[in-house]
Amino acid sequence: MGQELSVVGKRLPRPDAAAKATGIARYTIDIKLPGMLIGKVLRSPYPHAKIIKIDKSKAEKLPGVEAVIAFEDVPKKLFNMAMDDLLIRDQVVRAEREKQDQYVLSDKARYVGDAVAAVAAINESIAEEALELIEVEYEELPAMFDPIEAMKPDAPRIHDYAERNLAWHQSFPTPVGDVEKGFQEADYVVEETFHTSKQKHCVMEPVSCIASFDPTGRLTIWSPGQNAYPERRKIAELFDIPEGMIRWITPHVGGGFGAGTSLRAEPICIVLAKKTGKPVKLEYTREEQFVGTETRNPITQTVKMGVKKDGTITALQTKFTMDAGAYFSHSGQVGGANLGHLMSLYRSLNTTAGGDIIYSNTPISGAFRGFGNPQGMWALEQVVDMAAEKIGIDPMEFRLKNHRRTGDPTWVPFIPIENSEMEKCIKLGAERIGWREKRGTKNDGVRRRGMGMAIMMHSSGDYPILMEHSNAFIKLNEDGSANLVVSPGESGQNIVGALAQIAAEGLGLRFEDIHTVWGDTDATVFDVGSHASRTCYVTGNAVLRAATEAKRTVLDRAAKTLGVSAEELDVREGRVYVKATPDKGISVAEVARDAIYNFKGEVLQITGKCSYESWQSPVSEAAFAEVEVDTETGEVKLLKMVLAHDIGRAINPMTVEGQLEGGMVQGIGLGLTEEFLTNKSTGVLETDNFATYKILSTLDMPETEVIIVEQPVASGPYGAKSVGESPMVAITPAIANAVYNAVGIRIKDLPITPEKVLKALKAK
Amino acid sequence: MGQELSVVGKRLPRPDAAAKATGIARYTIDIKLPGMLIGKVLRSPYPHAKIIKIDKSKAEKLPGVEAVIAFEDVPKKLFNMAMDDLLIRDQVVRAEREKQDQYVLSDKARYVGDAVAAVAAINESIAEEALELIEVEYEELPAMFDPIEAMKPDAPRIHDYAERNLAWHQSFPTPVGDVEKGFQEADYVVEETFHTSKQKHCVMEPVSCIASFDPTGRLTIWSPGQNAYPERRKIAELFDIPEGMIRWITPHVGGGFGAGTSLRAEPICIVLAKKTGKPVKLEYTREEQFVGTETRNPITQTVKMGVKKDGTITALQTKFTMDAGAYFSHSGQVGGANLGHLMSLYRSLNTTAGGDIIYSNTPISGAFRGFGNPQGMWALEQVVDMAAEKIGIDPMEFRLKNHRRTGDPTWVPFIPIENSEMEKCIKLGAERIGWREKRGTKNDGVRRRGMGMAIMMHSSGDYPILMEHSNAFIKLNEDGSANLVVSPGESGQNIVGALAQIAAEGLGLRFEDIHTVWGDTDATVFDVGSHASRTCYVTGNAVLRAATEAKRTVLDRAAKTLGVSAEELDVREGRVYVKATPDKGISVAEVARDAIYNFKGEVLQITGKCSYESWQSPVSEAAFAEVEVDTETGEVKLLKMVLAHDIGRAINPMTVEGQLEGGMVQGIGLGLTEEFLTNKSTGVLETDNFATYKILSTLDMPETEVIIVEQPVASGPYGAKSVGESPMVAITPAIANAVYNAVGIRIKDLPITPEKVLKALKAK
Repeated sequence: MGQELSVVGKRLPRPDAAAKATGIARYTIDIKLPGMLIGKVLRSPYPHAKIIKIDKSKAEKLPGVEAVIAFEDVPKKLFNMAMDDLLIRDQVVRAEREKQDQYVLSDKARYVGDAVAAVAAINESIAEEALELIEVEYEELPAMFDPIEAMKPDAPRIHDYAERNLAWHQSFPTPVGDVEKGFQEADYVVEETFHTSKQKHCVMEPVSCIASFDPTGRLTIWSPGQNAYPERRKIAELFDIPEGMIRWITPHVGGGFGAGTSLRAEPICIVLAKKTGKPVKLEYTREEQFVGTETRNPITQTVKMGVKKDGTITALQTKFTMDAGAYFSHSGQVGGANLGHLMSLYRSLNTTAGGDIIYSNTPISGAFRGFGNPQGMWALEQVVDMAAEKIGIDPMEFRLKNHRRTGDPTWVPFIPIENSEMEKCIKLGAERIGWREKRGTKNDGVRRRGMGMAIMMHSSGDYPILMEHSNAFIKLNEDGSANLVVSPGESGQNIVGALAQIAAEGLGLRFEDIHTVWGDTDATVFDVGSHASRTCYVTGNAVLRAATEAKRTVLDRAAKTLGVSAEELDVREGRVYVKATPDKGISVAEVARDAIYNFKGEVLQITGKCSYESWQSPVSEAAFAEVEVDTETGEVKLLKMVLAHDIGRAINPMTVEGQLEGGMVQGIGLGLTEEFLTNKSTGVLETDNFATYKILSTLDMPETEVIIVEQPVASGPYGAKSVGESPMVAITPAIANAVYNAVGIRIKDLPITPEKVLKALKAK
Repeated sequence: MGQELSVVGKRLPRPDAAAKATGIARYTIDIKLPGMLIGKVLRSPYPHAKIIKIDKSKAEKLPGVEAVIAFEDVPKKLFNMAMDDLLIRDQVVRAEREKQDQYVLSDKARYVGDAVAAVAAINESIAEEALELIEVEYEELPAMFDPIEAMKPDAPRIHDYAERNLAWHQSFPTPVGDVEKGFQEADYVVEETFHTSKQKHCVMEPVSCIASFDPTGRLTIWSPGQNAYPERRKIAELFDIPEGMIRWITPHVGGGFGAGTSLRAEPICIVLAKKTGKPVKLEYTREEQFVGTETRNPITQTVKMGVKKDGTITALQTKFTMDAGAYFSHSGQVGGANLGHLMSLYRSLNTTAGGDIIYSNTPISGAFRGFGNPQGMWALEQVVDMAAEKIGIDPMEFRLKNHRRTGDPTWVPFIPIENSEMEKCIKLGAERIGWREKRGTKNDGVRRRGMGMAIMMHSSGDYPILMEHSNAFIKLNEDGSANLVVSPGESGQNIVGALAQIAAEGLGLRFEDIHTVWGDTDATVFDVGSHASRTCYVTGNAVLRAATEAKRTVLDRAAKTLGVSAEELDVREGRVYVKATPDKGISVAEVARDAIYNFKGEVLQITGKCSYESWQSPVSEAAFAEVEVDTETGEVKLLKMVLAHDIGRAINPMTVEGQLEGGMVQGIGLGLTEEFLTNKSTGVLETDNFATYKILSTLDMPETEVIIVEQPVASGPYGAKSVGESPMVAITPAIANAVYNAVGIRIKDLPITPEKVLKALKAK
């Protein structure tokens, strides 16, 4: 690169900002096709029940109803709604791990909300009326709402294959050293068990989908999915339709956070469209969104750590019991991310890790920003504080001593950490929150202040576990602008803007010269999509390489015009110039126009294309929380949060800050307010709207500060790593550690509610 | 190629057939955007008038009106609605020839129907009401309805620059030999003057356009244009918007025939959208379609031919006076095509050609299937019959002796005719119509039968006059299907289907494996579009080359898997096989899936891309007509038409037949029924709907037979040349010659109406 960057690193407005702000951006819900029907889903009122009989006849007779479907109408093929299974590199693991345990409509009810039938009608009210006319005869079965019950020997099986409802036992990463010997060598062994909650994504846009077959049998799907191509492949396999006969269109998307990495309403919508021969739209209500889509997997996690007095970690062990909910979905991936990230944050010569994934009669758990990492850090980063306390050293010093560094292995032994700025993150974060000045000063009043911290590492993509394949195609227009053709799974994170910045820099154009084409599998090029914080790092690399190829052609043609060699040229902000004599040059527009409108018989539309698979380069992060605990009410008031993030290169610092702040909001919600409460006897979700499920509003937010630490890495586009998931990972343990620092109690169950705090204070 | 073709040459249904037959195909008129306004145009009631003042105030005050625009609101930039000027290779000619003589809204009224103002309102009825409230003060000027009047010394100028209303004098091709000497050497000199009419395209879909600016200033246009990229460039230049800031979407299109090669409603629509800040839709009524879009240029053409008794042509000369109508549009291109095609059909050592293009106060003439060739053949092919009669030989023999052959020059001296099957076309056509048996037999009753013929050559694209640049991009999906990305200007001719057949053959796939992406300048690759019968020949070549590139990659990867060299492999109908042992093979789906979902780190989405500029390879054609003339009523009843067409290769014979039959219909209409009648005192068009402007219905059609003569040429994709315009070119003179053959009268003005026939019979 050599020269100063002109587009990358700039705080540029996202390309869709104006469309979204003015309301002209079109979401799936805004699309209306001629003759389109409205679909609705009938959901089980029982958490666990055999379906004896479904009588559709009354519903079918209701005028305006065009189809009523149940188990008998769907493919007799089990599938897994997650798309990751298609990408797992290890085919043995793939076969073993990604459980195919779900039908499009259930053969039996496995949670309150399980989809058992659906209708398509000419409007919403008729569709709703029809649902009431479907007569389902259930035979209730005992229901299990948590893994402990589900694992009991006499518990009925939720899925036939899963003995004691154990879906899968994971042991990853491979054990290192001798963990028992490690614990024996320790001066102190700290062991504690923690529990996380069933957090909900709370995306702005509820699930919506349109499916439409054309007269040739070609299927078009409109859906805010994050991974159009693998989801298309999943549909293809489920319905025996070749991939090319499916077009997946992704309109503007109102939030992803992992919720869009699975199939959701699409399969039911497709069955309805096929049966009626008409386009069908299926939208979830907010209540359905809560009950009928994935949540974060609750994990009960034990972390055992052996430490010496000098702070050395001699052994580290973890075990979890994970609640998969009623279907497996992404749970295997969540477990892997939990164990992998947990075990590779700190140096330890002796480690083992494992866990059990258990079915329960609760809504499906699975893909959610951070996957298992936030659950793991909730446990590990509290144990770290406990260990530091035992030894009597500052937990920050303990972390600075033990965190893995550049060149240390990641969770995959053959992939070292390309670069870690963890030390800088910790030190900068500590400085900004006033760690050394404030942490010592305790007070004894009703309101007591405390300070806590936590750190984490997170992957950029999931190489080598998953196949991380992205493509980019670039074509130059005659005005010197470029169309960037990609499919990164834009779901609100501004990846389209970031990729456009990379393309502009790579081509030597201005940001406004990049017009990105995305959201249509016919028009775009293959990409596994948006998951595992991969797109900027992986798709970004594909874009940079495609841009470099196109730029080379621009320079070659400019060289002929200018009478110099291409090596003597560079291009910046739309102008090719001679490096030695920058006044001599030619605009990219002139080059591109001459190539397209070439009257000398040398026509060319300048293009670049790259198929790329990533390497892996994890990011580091340190979170700091200052809290005030009201000892009379138990209320935890968060005064300030500081988050320092080691990103490699911030392609657009404004977007990165948005991700960091957004991650904080979700992390604080997970830590303090968000509760997914199911009635313990009926299994009915009692918090299925924003009146009862409390997410943070602007007014609830503490003072926040985000710090972007930049040290470009060789493997990333312009040195970029990732920022997607990580910002929420270390928030909850930082708050918990601050609460302990304030009042000496350790809350082990999320969220940290006033009730739990008061109870712990009393117990103390 | 070597082996038998598996897709090319098959009679396959067009990809859009089912969508069009079931009504789900969406045309521009079907698109509704939120907040969209409806535009309407105020047209001049006077054929020639100064606009003294336009008072918009009353219209602006009408509730629901959001903009009223007139000359003061449009760019003060003259332009030419034709897009060919952007593509003319000779920049001197370009500057001279393509007159910039038009404003978006006129500064003065130059024909009845000239657009002088426009409105945008919340619905159509308010828009129409608003038009009535616009007060225009005109000062009438003397109007000229034909070139003869317009060229008079005292005629007022329609455009200031054009003295005696002469827009341009053309002389093309360059004179050859000494034409005066040639006429002196002749035994007979035949000279006659003919006149053609102002034919209308009569596309099913009237002009419609939507223009919408997004908040960033980016403009999206929906319009059934035939040449999206050059039209986009024209818009860019007219409105000072970079091309990349304009997205041109072409929905399904209800007919082109050249009507879509010009800007039509787009500029007015854009001004309205810009002024209101809202999307605006502008649709023409059928009446507006008649008066407000181009027609075929009426040409008065004199052809002078010298012949020897042995049938040798010693000299050929032509002069025309062309009526451009009120604005120049494509008239230069029409004149060039007229002269070029006329002068290169027959061998002659001495030739000169030239013509004058004259403005008149009539609707704009310009682009129409065949451009000037039908006008030229109307004259030439009658003169040929007259010359043959003078000598006393069969006009078929005369043509067989004199038509240019393979290797003879085209209208461009350095481009020889790659291959001519004219002889075969003539002989096959003659055989099918029964030329030798029937032509001799005259009858003397009231109804007299006769037989006539005519021939023509026509270009495949307009190289080297125009820059003929096409691109194709192909990507393989994981099911072994391919997306073909092109922009050929599909307007109903099934070019998308033909290109898909070429792609399938080139890739070794089945036809149904090709899913074509077209109609969106963001997603597709550059193409000059659909004009001059170019797309199958030029874009087809780009597609074949892109397919060949992708196929090479398929074979390379298959070779690795099969353990052979790529040279040993071929691919057909989706299967790669070893040529020596065809049982050994692998499906393209396996190769493509392994490339995309490659878990060994060799990911690739297989693609191919080609930027291509064409050569030139004209087609030949012979038309035969058998008529019955009622000597009492003057009615000419067409009994049978035979059309033999030398196409090189018929990519899809069914489509080719459709083109041939469709061309016949338009040719017969031009010959017998279609009349564009303007009131000689008011200039008002009196035939502005299908009640008064008679196009042929199925019931009006004679027995027809089309013959496809195939002799693949090296320069075409799988040997294909073209079929777009040519089928209508030779129809009218064949009918006229048949009428002469039946009753001995020669009608020189189109159409051949009963009145003219009766009048001629009486004169005789």
